[in-house]
Amino acid sequence: MSRELIVLGTASQVPTRQRAHNGYLLRWDDQGLLFDPGEGAQRQLLLAGAAASDITRICVTHFHGDHCLGLPGIVQRLSLDRVPHEVPIHFPASGAEFLQRLRHASHFHDQARLAECPVEADGVQATGPFGTLSARRLRHPVESFGYRLAEPDGRRMLPERLAAHGVRGPDVGVLQRVGTVVAGGRLVSLDEVSEPRRGQVVAFVMDTGWCDAAIELARDADLLVIESTFLESEAALAAEAGHLTAAQAARIATEAGVRRLVLTHFSQRHPDASVFGEEAAAHFDGEIVVAEELARIAVPPRR
Amino acid sequence: MSRELIVLGTASQVPTRQRAHNGYLLRWDDQGLLFDPGEGAQRQLLLAGAAASDITRICVTHFHGDHCLGLPGIVQRLSLDRVPHEVPIHFPASGAEFLQRLRHASHFHDQARLAECPVEADGVQATGPFGTLSARRLRHPVESFGYRLAEPDGRRMLPERLAAHGVRGPDVGVLQRVGTVVAGGRLVSLDEVSEPRRGQVVAFVMDTGWCDAAIELARDADLLVIESTFLESEAALAAEAGHLTAAQAARIATEAGVRRLVLTHFSQRHPDASVFGEEAAAHFDGEIVVAEELARIAVPPRR
Repeated sequence: MSRELIVLGTASQVPTRQRAHNGYLLRWDDQGLLFDPGEGAQRQLLLAGAAASDITRICVTHFHGDHCLGLPGIVQRLSLDRVPHEVPIHFPASGAEFLQRLRHASHFHDQARLAECPVEADGVQATGPFGTLSARRLRHPVESFGYRLAEPDGRRMLPERLAAHGVRGPDVGVLQRVGTVVAGGRLVSLDEVSEPRRGQVVAFVMDTGWCDAAIELARDADLLVIESTFLESEAALAAEAGHLTAAQAARIATEAGVRRLVLTHFSQRHPDASVFGEEAAAHFDGEIVVAEELARIAVPPRR
Repeated sequence: MSRELIVLGTASQVPTRQRAHNGYLLRWDDQGLLFDPGEGAQRQLLLAGAAASDITRICVTHFHGDHCLGLPGIVQRLSLDRVPHEVPIHFPASGAEFLQRLRHASHFHDQARLAECPVEADGVQATGPFGTLSARRLRHPVESFGYRLAEPDGRRMLPERLAAHGVRGPDVGVLQRVGTVVAGGRLVSLDEVSEPRRGQVVAFVMDTGWCDAAIELARDADLLVIESTFLESEAALAAEAGHLTAAQAARIATEAGVRRLVLTHFSQRHPDASVFGEEAAAHFDGEIVVAEELARIAVPPRR
């Protein structure tokens, strides 16, 4: 089962020759979560080899243009392609009026099965085959919510213990589903033949200034996708605009115990994005990925 | 003075790997007329080396997404860049609600000086340094207007006659402005030393099925930019959808007496657009340009 982030764009407010507007598709087994489709997301999806039908859920952090102007194209494409499944869309409730404008931005034969799920407050927004999707309010001039996708914790079967207890073949499945199984004339419980397995976690944090909510969203995340608009030399500008520096993004990752840190949403001031990675490296010991257009970034393998 | 069409995209409803959504900037001396900005127009402008401040006027033929979903990005960029001049925007009056949604699609600090000029009916929509902008209703499932930009006819000075009449230096300017000047003790009129010079004409025709309005818009145009969504083998589909085949676009150009024909707005069915040019060539003797992303197509020199 494939779990990876497909980067559609890495620009912030202003696109550049190298950077398309912001946008991300998280492939999570058979699910596809589209985050913050900026202008051009429809074509970037195509260039990434993804189809509208791959989208099973949309999450919008806030209604600044670089995070949502790709929505009309996505909705119209879902419709044109007659994507049969319902696509829930999460967005700050305070921006409901913008969602309506974007959904009905121009003439089209609306067949998209969009289910509106306004985010009213922090907490769990949905549960499903992807696990639990929760949101927390960030710190930005307009209301902005970060998202956290968490697979339920499970258990990892231990082959040597299964063998020792004589559990084999279809009995393994029964044990996983039911929690116990009779093997060799004895009741064997799941705990005896398995160990705890932490569910995978992906966090998506943008746009925001430094705040505790960002750390809580990212707590123990396997993959953290986070805005890194500025550098520490522009810290005052970042604070004023409600954005993070690469160093701050890295410190959030460190405090939260993140494994793989993905930096994105770069200011046009820095055409070479490697500077963000270099700054972050001084503040985070884990793996740092400086996002690039159309890159595929794997969720790290389970611990 | 530079007069050229900058092609931002050549796709129709659906973008492809090679084709960005529809969009065109007509550079006309110091004016910049943006036609039908589809999604991604903001970044395509950047890739073409044009700035938001180059836009002095916007013309929208109709409110299907591929002709207008780039508007929010353009408006927000005009605002962000604090473009000081007023930008009139022409659009079908029946789509006024869509215009409002696109203008106010997301949070931004609105400083754009957009002047709304709804097109209510056929006729002259504006006059200015570019000449006369007129519109005509086309034939499409939603109301669609084509545009025609016509420079006033003028007069071309004839150096040998100026010399024969002794008109020289600053007197030439006086003659052009006033219509007469005294030279060599005699009143010389403009007619005596010049010949008629036809104003240049550019026509922009999309989306439409075959109709007389398309021919009238294109009458004697130096440059005709016209949709050529399908091929003659798909004529039934074209008629049903209110689109043109390449052969029809070429016959419109022939009937109208066009000089340079620009084909664009291609269906994804035809990844290689050269087929449109080949089909058109059998129906039009003038110059045919098959539009490509970021191409610059000159308005032909004056006759």
